[in-house]
Amino acid sequence: MAEVRRDPIVGRSVIIAPERAGRPQEFVDKPLVSRETYCPFCERNEAETPGEIAAIRNLGTSANDPGWQVRVIPNKYPALNGLSSADLEAADDSPPIAAAESDRFCSSQPAIGRHEVIIESPHHLLRTGSLTESQLADVLRVYRDRMRAHRAAGRLRYVQIFKNVGEAAGASIEHLHSQLMALDFVPGAIVDELTGSREYFSRTGSCIFCDLIERESTADVRVVETTAEFTAICPYASRFPYEVWLLPRRHSQRFEDADDQLLTAAAAGLLRVLKGVEKLLDSVGSGSTGYNYVLHSAPFDSSEADHYHWHIEVIPRAVKQAGFEWATGVHINPVPPEEAAATLKRLI
Amino acid sequence: MAEVRRDPIVGRSVIIAPERAGRPQEFVDKPLVSRETYCPFCERNEAETPGEIAAIRNLGTSANDPGWQVRVIPNKYPALNGLSSADLEAADDSPPIAAAESDRFCSSQPAIGRHEVIIESPHHLLRTGSLTESQLADVLRVYRDRMRAHRAAGRLRYVQIFKNVGEAAGASIEHLHSQLMALDFVPGAIVDELTGSREYFSRTGSCIFCDLIERESTADVRVVETTAEFTAICPYASRFPYEVWLLPRRHSQRFEDADDQLLTAAAAGLLRVLKGVEKLLDSVGSGSTGYNYVLHSAPFDSSEADHYHWHIEVIPRAVKQAGFEWATGVHINPVPPEEAAATLKRLI
Repeated sequence: MAEVRRDPIVGRSVIIAPERAGRPQEFVDKPLVSRETYCPFCERNEAETPGEIAAIRNLGTSANDPGWQVRVIPNKYPALNGLSSADLEAADDSPPIAAAESDRFCSSQPAIGRHEVIIESPHHLLRTGSLTESQLADVLRVYRDRMRAHRAAGRLRYVQIFKNVGEAAGASIEHLHSQLMALDFVPGAIVDELTGSREYFSRTGSCIFCDLIERESTADVRVVETTAEFTAICPYASRFPYEVWLLPRRHSQRFEDADDQLLTAAAAGLLRVLKGVEKLLDSVGSGSTGYNYVLHSAPFDSSEADHYHWHIEVIPRAVKQAGFEWATGVHINPVPPEEAAATLKRLI
Repeated sequence: MAEVRRDPIVGRSVIIAPERAGRPQEFVDKPLVSRETYCPFCERNEAETPGEIAAIRNLGTSANDPGWQVRVIPNKYPALNGLSSADLEAADDSPPIAAAESDRFCSSQPAIGRHEVIIESPHHLLRTGSLTESQLADVLRVYRDRMRAHRAAGRLRYVQIFKNVGEAAGASIEHLHSQLMALDFVPGAIVDELTGSREYFSRTGSCIFCDLIERESTADVRVVETTAEFTAICPYASRFPYEVWLLPRRHSQRFEDADDQLLTAAAAGLLRVLKGVEKLLDSVGSGSTGYNYVLHSAPFDSSEADHYHWHIEVIPRAVKQAGFEWATGVHINPVPPEEAAATLKRLI
């Protein structure tokens, strides 16, 4: 059974997920699961995946049949245990030692939640840039609807949506997809953002993200793209070359509160940014580069998270993380974000 | 000029190092610099590197000539600016905008320090496991002596020593080497360890690392190796499969205080652990896996860091970090450390 363990010295949480070890690409540096081998995410191969949880489907088609545009399935190698006690019991093969230990040095709890895969197209597309605006808007609406469903179910506290494109970015299947992990705890990186933005709010009465958008728009040296509804910037302290944050211009703490119209605008902005990033990676990489994007939104139970502001972080993986980064938590970024923004602007 | 920038929301420090962009392997996923191409680190190619800073040499040989066992040179593509004002002035080509901006949103300082490379053998070795105990002990003594030199120079606060072995671990040159970055700030990951261990010390009067060694030796499910002087464990909340920490059994906060005898024992322990890790990576990987090891030691200016305890963290890179890890700061590890320790023990 998957566990969340807490490091006794720094308090860092880690998910120990033995079930993941079964993934075909977990350890070895194999090529991605591609169309040439056999793609379980392509239309007509629905029987190869666990049964679908949700989908955008043509009228008159049935679950797990062809005729869909976006399809949500449980991850076949989940990093989390199911929610029901039946699920938990069925999955319970934890080593006795972990259960027996519980003190300052060994603090563990079952890793409870949902781990889902969002297949973004019935066709074997490899890049977000191959989607149309309207297809990407559908994907974002599915994200939102899944978040609403997990929120309504209670018990879970935070949903992390993320996408891995390309081998270097940790993808194991090349067919365009994203993942969702609904957790019963708020991860450290989100806690840090909440703490920082709360501190700023209590000092100034403003949302730090709103002020940042204003500040960056005025300075206009790190802005990649501005529309009526969204601003895309290369953040001042970018960890990665060509890192981009996409922020809604109007204050909003939760992604799941977005209406269809806002998500259509988000899709347009995200698509333009990702097309730029994809062009850029083509020009610097030899094919095994890639990127992630991740969605940050307020936790479900932060009733008064007025200081927070949802956004999407795009993380190109053009450089490798080496020992220094793991040792110190400090990233070395060879491309100043001012230069990155200028390059991306030109490409878009 | 390289800068340390601080993220306005979470306070995270990042080194923006435009000089690094010139590295041949910075962006593209090229093969490592190997003997087949041309290795600047091999004996007799000394003229291809910046002039040496220190070396273990045969009697009668001169700096930058053949006849050395371990050789320390400045990194040709440093992520840090030199210390002298002349160095700083010479390197000053910072974009005007960074200098002009300074407020809550844009906080930057020059990235001051030293970035050195420790070439661990005159021969074209690819793995730490190919060194003898006595050769690795020489390398550790060079680490120590460089730390002492940086400490004596004043101004700098922390030295991070790290090693990248293999492409997946961020190495750009395959010839066995480590790196040293002497910084004028204490990185976040070290601050976190200092904070956690200080909190424990003030509550219990003990060093958390000493108690951890005791606790793990008693439980004996995550111990990889024990000698009179060192204990190697797979940490309870391992972030990575087969992560190993090597800790001196006798309390010591600073690596640079170690005497030759202790470093001989450290080399013996580290070598056994790394040989195990190398065997393991051979068995799970297809050649593009790798590992890092990093040294954590008390900062120079922490006069009363009695609560801290130096150690070496070995980080095998058998799995890729995907979007979830970057989004949340939470690692997913498919191999429970109890299982990892048993496997490594068997291999050693």
